Amino acid sequence: MDISDVLTRLRTFADARDWQQFHTPRNLTLALVGEVGELAELVQWRTDDDVLALARTEAGREALADERADVFTYLVELADTLGIDLDRAVHAKIDKNAVKYPVELARGSNAKYTELGTP
Amino acid sequence: MDISDVLTRLRTFADARDWQQFHTPRNLTLALVGEVGELAELVQWRTDDDVLALARTEAGREALADERADVFTYLVELADTLGIDLDRAVHAKIDKNAVKYPVELARGSNAKYTELGTP
Amino acid sequence: MDISDVLTRLRTFADARDWQQFHTPRNLTLALVGEVGELAELVQWRTDDDVLALARTEAGREALADERADVFTYLVELADTLGIDLDRAVHAKIDKNAVKYPVELARGSNAKYTELGTP
Amino acid sequence: MDISDVLTRLRTFADARDWQQFHTPRNLTLALVGEVGELAELVQWRTDDDVLALARTEAGREALADERADVFTYLVELADTLGIDLDRAVHAKIDKNAVKYPVELARGSNAKYTELGTP
Repeated sequence: MDISDVLTRLRTFADARDWQQFHTPRNLTLALVGEVGELAELVQWRTDDDVLALARTEAGREALADERADVFTYLVELADTLGIDLDRAVHAKIDKNAVKYPVELARGSNAKYTELGTP
Repeated sequence: MDISDVLTRLRTFADARDWQQFHTPRNLTLALVGEVGELAELVQWRTDDDVLALARTEAGREALADERADVFTYLVELADTLGIDLDRAVHAKIDKNAVKYPVELARGSNAKYTELGTP
Repeated sequence: MDISDVLTRLRTFADARDWQQFHTPRNLTLALVGEVGELAELVQWRTDDDVLALARTEAGREALADERADVFTYLVELADTLGIDLDRAVHAKIDKNAVKYPVELARGSNAKYTELGTP
Repeated sequence: MDISDVLTRLRTFADARDWQQFHTPRNLTLALVGEVGELAELVQWRTDDDVLALARTEAGREALADERADVFTYLVELADTLGIDLDRAVHAKIDKNAVKYPVELARGSNAKYTELGTP
């Protein structure tokens, strides 16, 4: 997937509808929250196995895919509004996390980096 | 940005730490919510202009970029866990939205598609 | 617990700091999201049993209690800003839910009311 | 408003439907997130003035009140499941915040307590 293709489509979509005026940082953050809420609703009363089973049905897969796509869309638009290069941001963050969570300390642990011991 | 590159890095990262065991649909959804909360904290008491100004400082840009990267990461991992092709999902959802929000009805309007009039 | 006591304390607290200016509907909604994110972080990599165990430790109980209190506080302030009587709203909503989820249909089911069968 | 009355009603409601089995900490947290998402959807494309105007219409007020009630309900049930006394938690947290945000430093400031200067 090429994010710049997605971004181009999203910009064209918004421009055609004169929606750029609504794409402020706070509007997009709130819209992102709304979509994450819909994602949560799909898993709220289900076990992980139930969610995985849902993802194997056609209707369930589509519902889960749609919500993920919505979150993704707002995230890309938010980065665009703020002039953030999402690609660079993601790779830079993975680099940081590699430092925060050294393999030898973090292996098999669900602890936050501030709570990891020293080797 | 190529999402499959990101996904490959994230899988390698998780495998090296034996973290795939934690990457269940509900864990990742909750982790996503945590990161969205941090994003909200960055904009909660600020106007849109303040947020845009923040994004132009180096420290602010990095903070905003990091939170976006975190949301993105969990979203990609969530899609991976559920076997969802995020690329296809995003393009399919934009196609759907184009039908739900016809240009002539949606232009300049912030109404939900269920509340758009007929031309 | 008397919510009007809490509301009185919160108003006094905000007035003393000249914070009412920040208590707009959208600011408070975003602040609420931030606190819900912190709540999610406390449970994200834990099983339900782990969370219950955490709630039985003193530090864990305090952390969980604090986040709940923060969400509660913003919710009360949000209702106050919008002129909503939270007491009446809550009881009215329980009444509605009793209609949406009739005992004979909803018993033991995690289905949404739109998916409940007919008796 | 007496929260113990609300809690009693909610317990009776859940017991009658055999729903206590679903009221685990993580389920309730995810349900809370879903409701906060619906709250965000009500304000996402609106200015604060628009939200306040919405709150003055009957339908808008009811929608906003209902979402607040839902968030409140899950919050009370979550505290109940974890054995947290929400009343005590809220007052204790306000006490803590009074220490974190001394009037003379916090007056008129939207800074986080970690960023407040010294007098």
